[in-house]
Amino acid sequence: MREILIIGAGKSTSVLINHLLENAESEDLFLRIGDLNLETAQKATQNHKRCEALVLDVFDPASREAAIKKADIVISMLPARFHIEVARDCVKFKKNMVTASYISKEMKALDEEVKKNNLVFMNEIGVDPGIDHMSAMQVIDRIRDKGGKMLMFESFTGGLVAPESDTNLWNYKFTWNPRNVVVAGQGGVAEFIQEGKFKYIPYHRLFRRTELLQIDDYGKFEGYANRNSLDYMSIYGLEDILTLFRGTIRRVGFSRAWNMFVQLGMTDDSFEMSDSENMSYREFVNSFLPYSPTDSVELKLRHNLKIDQDDLMWEKLLELDIFTDKKKIGIKDATPAQALQKILMEKWSLAPDDKDMIVMYHKFGYELNGEKKQIDSTMVHIGKNQTETAMAKTVGLPLAIATIKILNKEISTPGVQLPIKKEVYEPILRELEKYDIIFKEKESEYLGYNTFGEVGN
Amino acid sequence: MREILIIGAGKSTSVLINHLLENAESEDLFLRIGDLNLETAQKATQNHKRCEALVLDVFDPASREAAIKKADIVISMLPARFHIEVARDCVKFKKNMVTASYISKEMKALDEEVKKNNLVFMNEIGVDPGIDHMSAMQVIDRIRDKGGKMLMFESFTGGLVAPESDTNLWNYKFTWNPRNVVVAGQGGVAEFIQEGKFKYIPYHRLFRRTELLQIDDYGKFEGYANRNSLDYMSIYGLEDILTLFRGTIRRVGFSRAWNMFVQLGMTDDSFEMSDSENMSYREFVNSFLPYSPTDSVELKLRHNLKIDQDDLMWEKLLELDIFTDKKKIGIKDATPAQALQKILMEKWSLAPDDKDMIVMYHKFGYELNGEKKQIDSTMVHIGKNQTETAMAKTVGLPLAIATIKILNKEISTPGVQLPIKKEVYEPILRELEKYDIIFKEKESEYLGYNTFGEVGN
Repeated sequence: MREILIIGAGKSTSVLINHLLENAESEDLFLRIGDLNLETAQKATQNHKRCEALVLDVFDPASREAAIKKADIVISMLPARFHIEVARDCVKFKKNMVTASYISKEMKALDEEVKKNNLVFMNEIGVDPGIDHMSAMQVIDRIRDKGGKMLMFESFTGGLVAPESDTNLWNYKFTWNPRNVVVAGQGGVAEFIQEGKFKYIPYHRLFRRTELLQIDDYGKFEGYANRNSLDYMSIYGLEDILTLFRGTIRRVGFSRAWNMFVQLGMTDDSFEMSDSENMSYREFVNSFLPYSPTDSVELKLRHNLKIDQDDLMWEKLLELDIFTDKKKIGIKDATPAQALQKILMEKWSLAPDDKDMIVMYHKFGYELNGEKKQIDSTMVHIGKNQTETAMAKTVGLPLAIATIKILNKEISTPGVQLPIKKEVYEPILRELEKYDIIFKEKESEYLGYNTFGEVGN
Repeated sequence: MREILIIGAGKSTSVLINHLLENAESEDLFLRIGDLNLETAQKATQNHKRCEALVLDVFDPASREAAIKKADIVISMLPARFHIEVARDCVKFKKNMVTASYISKEMKALDEEVKKNNLVFMNEIGVDPGIDHMSAMQVIDRIRDKGGKMLMFESFTGGLVAPESDTNLWNYKFTWNPRNVVVAGQGGVAEFIQEGKFKYIPYHRLFRRTELLQIDDYGKFEGYANRNSLDYMSIYGLEDILTLFRGTIRRVGFSRAWNMFVQLGMTDDSFEMSDSENMSYREFVNSFLPYSPTDSVELKLRHNLKIDQDDLMWEKLLELDIFTDKKKIGIKDATPAQALQKILMEKWSLAPDDKDMIVMYHKFGYELNGEKKQIDSTMVHIGKNQTETAMAKTVGLPLAIATIKILNKEISTPGVQLPIKKEVYEPILRELEKYDIIFKEKESEYLGYNTFGEVGN
């Protein structure tokens, strides 16, 4: 039996564990699931005979080392900053390792040692990062193998609510960590390149510089810029590309409405508000507006943000019950971002029957035999229920498939890596198709960076 | 003879040194001027017989200690972060000390030792901080001595160009460190209190939430919020006050125009731009605007910032020659703020005959014998020339006067302090009047926080 150690048994691991247990007999696997909380780990084992739970505190070297020593491969589902403790032991005891997180500097620094020991440390193999890398590189490699020259690469991903569960004016519910949504885009300028020109969008303009996207059967979406597009020039080997843009997908109109919070200062996570515990939602809103002895909070906000009487933006605010003086923030020393998250979670949490949806959209512009062409590649995946969410599936399946393929030596190139090699992405993408994670491609003439038109028009 | 050591002989020290030399005979003073650059120090001595120059590197303990040991009092004109080196020696050798900088944590920590040695460490005794503290506390103490209760304190200061030298559409020239102007307001939310309600303004809204001010003979001004108003609740003993707001003064219209740069992201000092050295001004502007194959940088900017054709904002941009492709930023790895500073310095530097102007405006609201009242106190001081600037005078005179009064034991309460005690502000303000630094007061009924009206209306 090949032993797999999974560290961290949070909610997002359900599909990962299911997939490994389903293949446990045929692949001769044994799973050990380690978590700080034994009950969480035990629940995750599903009482499967090829699975056992253990208490594992990643900061206790003795228990960590003992568990890693016994394993053939280790999957770390911990928060990204904790992977390095596991990774150092994996080098020490010569074990392969898999994570769904971005490669940190500390992880990168282990590359030489990992190669020397002929180990595979596969990172960024969830959905974003993960499926985005694989599906993009598959098309990019195909274009280049034919002799094409890449002109443009744009890539967008979003975790959204499925159309059948889309019941609010914002067309959005929290399907993943709400905090990441509230502070999205903060901490630095968004940098990218368009037609050879470097472009910068400051945070307070981010949600007003969106790009429209359209996907057959699913309608219109919009994308706002991620901060780190330029990193992908070297990661994907696109050093000479004219346009490179990565973004986050929302339904059309979300960003314009979200911008109201940004403009008011409600997404700020850098300071604590006075007496936030006893502050009503109405007082929270009012703290970002000028004092007036006569005017209402509502009118001051409308005036401040120039919201016309018949603007849907207004209905979106009312839907959040943000002007009520009946509800309190109730969090001590809350930052504005924490207070806003509290307000939004009341309205944007998934109901028990709600389904989530992952949407991915890549645009590839290229020149081949003197002709400029474009490929638009899209993937939409809808969750089954609140356990088998689209997010858990698109994160868990690539992790599980990669783990088995590393055990079977189908993936064997050593090093600290992400899934951009054919050896890795071809078999995994093929397998993902069985689980309805399928990219659809459309070929067209090169549309270039047309900020006014819509795709396909 | 009483020996005064001045450390740092930059341009801003001219009036300070003049004043001390003018009083050198009558007060029996001897000045030693220490600077890293001997020539700078020598020039500052004016070959006065009661003055000598020396080379002083504040990070060379031997020369620093030797100089401080010989002095009776030390004036540090170094950048604020270097005072602490001087301060520790002043404690060691039991010397009084004077600075125009805000009291740092490190400086504050010396308070007990300073008191134990019966020393006076007078800080924040320039113009802002300095004259603002003294002129505000004089009125606040007068109100409280009569039994009045403070309701409101607002205080604004600005370094501007004098009306006779005000020759551009921005009504602004650099009269002090240009960098501080470009990055003003960054690094945190502006917090203050209005009629008992805490208010927060994020940076990207700061220049759209100004307050109008009017001063007889000088016309209209505007003030935007400083970040740290709430600190003054404890500094001035105004813990129960309903309104406390501190701000920076500009001519009306400056902030609205400056906001264009803020919105575009041009004041950002947190990242370096690609190839900034070879970037034209036009390319700099374009990097903050979306790519378009057809539209001009001008139209994209107008559209992005919603600038109408007949809006004066547009003329303000043209005046800066910001759309030219003939001039280059020419700075390697420049941040946007550095690039913008370069562009502005070409147009906003003082001409040889230009004069500067310091403007200060305090509003005091209070209740006395059941009646609500208000005092508006204003000070305008215009520079004489490019040496005797209003800035150098309003910084240098309080420093010089305080130094002599400490030597004469007229100011004697020991400790690390700022000028908020009667013992300090009364004689200094009286003396400043001789130099035409005069506050004019207007009494009225309490106007409260009326965001729509103007003062006096």
